[in-house]
Amino acid sequence: MALIVQKFGGTSVGSTEKIKAVARRVTAYQQQGNQVIVVLSAMSGETDRLTGFAQDIQEIPNRREMDMLLSTGEQVTIALFAMAVKEGGSDAVSLLGDQVAIRTDDMHTRARIKNIDTRLIQKHLDAGKIVTIAGFQGVTEEGDITTLGRGGSDTTAVALAAALKADACEIFTDVDGVYTTDPNICTKARKIDRISYDEMLELASLGAKVLDIRSVGLAKRYNVPLHVRSTFSENEGTWVVEEDKIMESMLVSGVTYNKNEARITIKHVPDQPGIAAKIFLPISDAGIMVDMIIQNTRDSHLTDMTFTVMRSDYARAIELLKEVADEIGAESVSGDKNIAKISVVGVGMRNHSGIASTMFQILAKEGINMEMVSTSEIKVSCVIAEKYTELAVRALHDAFALDKENMPAEEE
Amino acid sequence: MALIVQKFGGTSVGSTEKIKAVARRVTAYQQQGNQVIVVLSAMSGETDRLTGFAQDIQEIPNRREMDMLLSTGEQVTIALFAMAVKEGGSDAVSLLGDQVAIRTDDMHTRARIKNIDTRLIQKHLDAGKIVTIAGFQGVTEEGDITTLGRGGSDTTAVALAAALKADACEIFTDVDGVYTTDPNICTKARKIDRISYDEMLELASLGAKVLDIRSVGLAKRYNVPLHVRSTFSENEGTWVVEEDKIMESMLVSGVTYNKNEARITIKHVPDQPGIAAKIFLPISDAGIMVDMIIQNTRDSHLTDMTFTVMRSDYARAIELLKEVADEIGAESVSGDKNIAKISVVGVGMRNHSGIASTMFQILAKEGINMEMVSTSEIKVSCVIAEKYTELAVRALHDAFALDKENMPAEEE
Repeated sequence: MALIVQKFGGTSVGSTEKIKAVARRVTAYQQQGNQVIVVLSAMSGETDRLTGFAQDIQEIPNRREMDMLLSTGEQVTIALFAMAVKEGGSDAVSLLGDQVAIRTDDMHTRARIKNIDTRLIQKHLDAGKIVTIAGFQGVTEEGDITTLGRGGSDTTAVALAAALKADACEIFTDVDGVYTTDPNICTKARKIDRISYDEMLELASLGAKVLDIRSVGLAKRYNVPLHVRSTFSENEGTWVVEEDKIMESMLVSGVTYNKNEARITIKHVPDQPGIAAKIFLPISDAGIMVDMIIQNTRDSHLTDMTFTVMRSDYARAIELLKEVADEIGAESVSGDKNIAKISVVGVGMRNHSGIASTMFQILAKEGINMEMVSTSEIKVSCVIAEKYTELAVRALHDAFALDKENMPAEEE
Repeated sequence: MALIVQKFGGTSVGSTEKIKAVARRVTAYQQQGNQVIVVLSAMSGETDRLTGFAQDIQEIPNRREMDMLLSTGEQVTIALFAMAVKEGGSDAVSLLGDQVAIRTDDMHTRARIKNIDTRLIQKHLDAGKIVTIAGFQGVTEEGDITTLGRGGSDTTAVALAAALKADACEIFTDVDGVYTTDPNICTKARKIDRISYDEMLELASLGAKVLDIRSVGLAKRYNVPLHVRSTFSENEGTWVVEEDKIMESMLVSGVTYNKNEARITIKHVPDQPGIAAKIFLPISDAGIMVDMIIQNTRDSHLTDMTFTVMRSDYARAIELLKEVADEIGAESVSGDKNIAKISVVGVGMRNHSGIASTMFQILAKEGINMEMVSTSEIKVSCVIAEKYTELAVRALHDAFALDKENMPAEEE
């Protein structure tokens, strides 16, 4: 007998017919002798409806009241789901975040889970019930309702799986797993069967559509096996697991791209201690996130500083940096909005130095210039001109043979 | 400084524009130096939407899950209302039944309030906030959400007023008060300024559209002054208060009618102890409510038994009673669906024996035959043929001069 947490997103429970279908699927799984906890999102469209009401009323909706409002969406779904299970002849009970209780801090609309009391859930499981729990919501020590922000239902599911020491957490969605790259731009993209937490974290932009990245971090921390799969088929999806549970790691797991960033360069910065802080403090004070940062030594006392920001922050960042450049005596601030970041990810590259050079060769062969390069333990990222994005992704996908299954990493 | 509970029904908060208007009105009232607790219903249409979902899923929706589902309606409204107050520059906080806590028994979909913890409300009031509370809902000792059934938000408002010893409970609705009779059939119907709890209870059918009768009983028990008034005007409505707070009681306060009942007669029932129980037990076992009961002695050992049931229960009641009649050796079971019950209500009649006879004279003058008569301390009811309903109501309204204000009851 396994204990499984199953999470279904908004499109999976977008109508009463779909809720009934999910109830049948979960019930069948329980009847095979498993214990099941079902975490549900709001019906698709519901959160938009409620947000629309709020925007009619308050320009910047009060965060506590926003949580009071939005948390009703999941409450509706779990009640209907429990009815659907009962109509099918099995037993179910719905529980809200505060009934469980899922305790969070008091950062309304983006709260973090502090702890989960599993006793009530365990009691209902022991009584043979399917326990359905509202995703996305928790409760503060003072009894105020909170929500967990974007992708919150995934976080609820993983946190419950961790607290209950469940055998797995299954995330049901409208795609059938995580792919080696975006199938929309590379027809050879292949569904990944097993991938490590670290790779999944680095593949954030591929996974974002199917799995909230915060929940992957949580799953890694508590070692919860994650299974991303389709609501609309019985096929296995992608398992996200500990690295040593993957028999044969791929050299490279996936190729991702990101078109939401812009590059900024400050030239001829005096190369002295504390200069980087002077540049980045006004940026972070303005709430602007910086991604890649590269510093090239130019000559003895001058350096060039290049980094990327979100494209929507580009104009503001340039403006701020021109002031800074004057202050510190740098030569110029320039940048480029039309860039893309291409990344190659894989735990296999830990033991294989050839990945970066292969990547550079492939891009060079296609005549694509690299504006920036950065590497982490399991990722190599290059910034290129945006117009080459699709070409680069397809070429790299081919070069690393990602369309072939189980090409194991070779030890050097 | 007064402490007032104000309750707004679904049509009063049926859109974001209406919610903003209510927020402005309540805020203005608070700024006059009052403390205000606002009890809200679900936006009109919302409960139907949710009920529709439930009916799609479960033939007889599970009561606990129905409460989980329906209680979201009021939660949405209080969150939006609190935002609207804040947008207007004042402070507000929304609270759910379980946050307050409003403790109920565990009779889901028709729970009764056991007690209310006023501490959290008092804390927020003391901090200068408008406190808005979800109507219709409570929580069991075990933490399950309950709803209070039909008219539940009125009950919430009155119970809160009682628990907080508020100066008054104002019920805002889409009509401007309680009338001496139905204005749709009697153009001379007049709005009543002040009426006693007991009269309001007897005038149930007049009040049903504006005020749940259960909340009147609660208001009487805890002596909470009730004010039924319009959301859409500043005019005073109808005050429902203790009898001795009404300076000049009317002889008669109102004339009501009820077309939802049917008459049943069992003839030649053996007149012996226990026979009534034999007749009514199968009826009550079938969940059929009996209203008026009249027993006429016919001759030494036989009696006729006549009573009324809801029209929708008529066929089933006749069927059950034919079996009973055979068993106990009664002669026949007959009935009439096309009847109306006309009632004249007023605390003035306690000291005035002439009301019933005036009523009989008026009906006789109009050629209306009375099929049944029953009286209580402050009410006289007659069953007549349904087709005479409007004629009888208008004639009685005229006869007791209900279109004239303040005709005091004369002591005999």
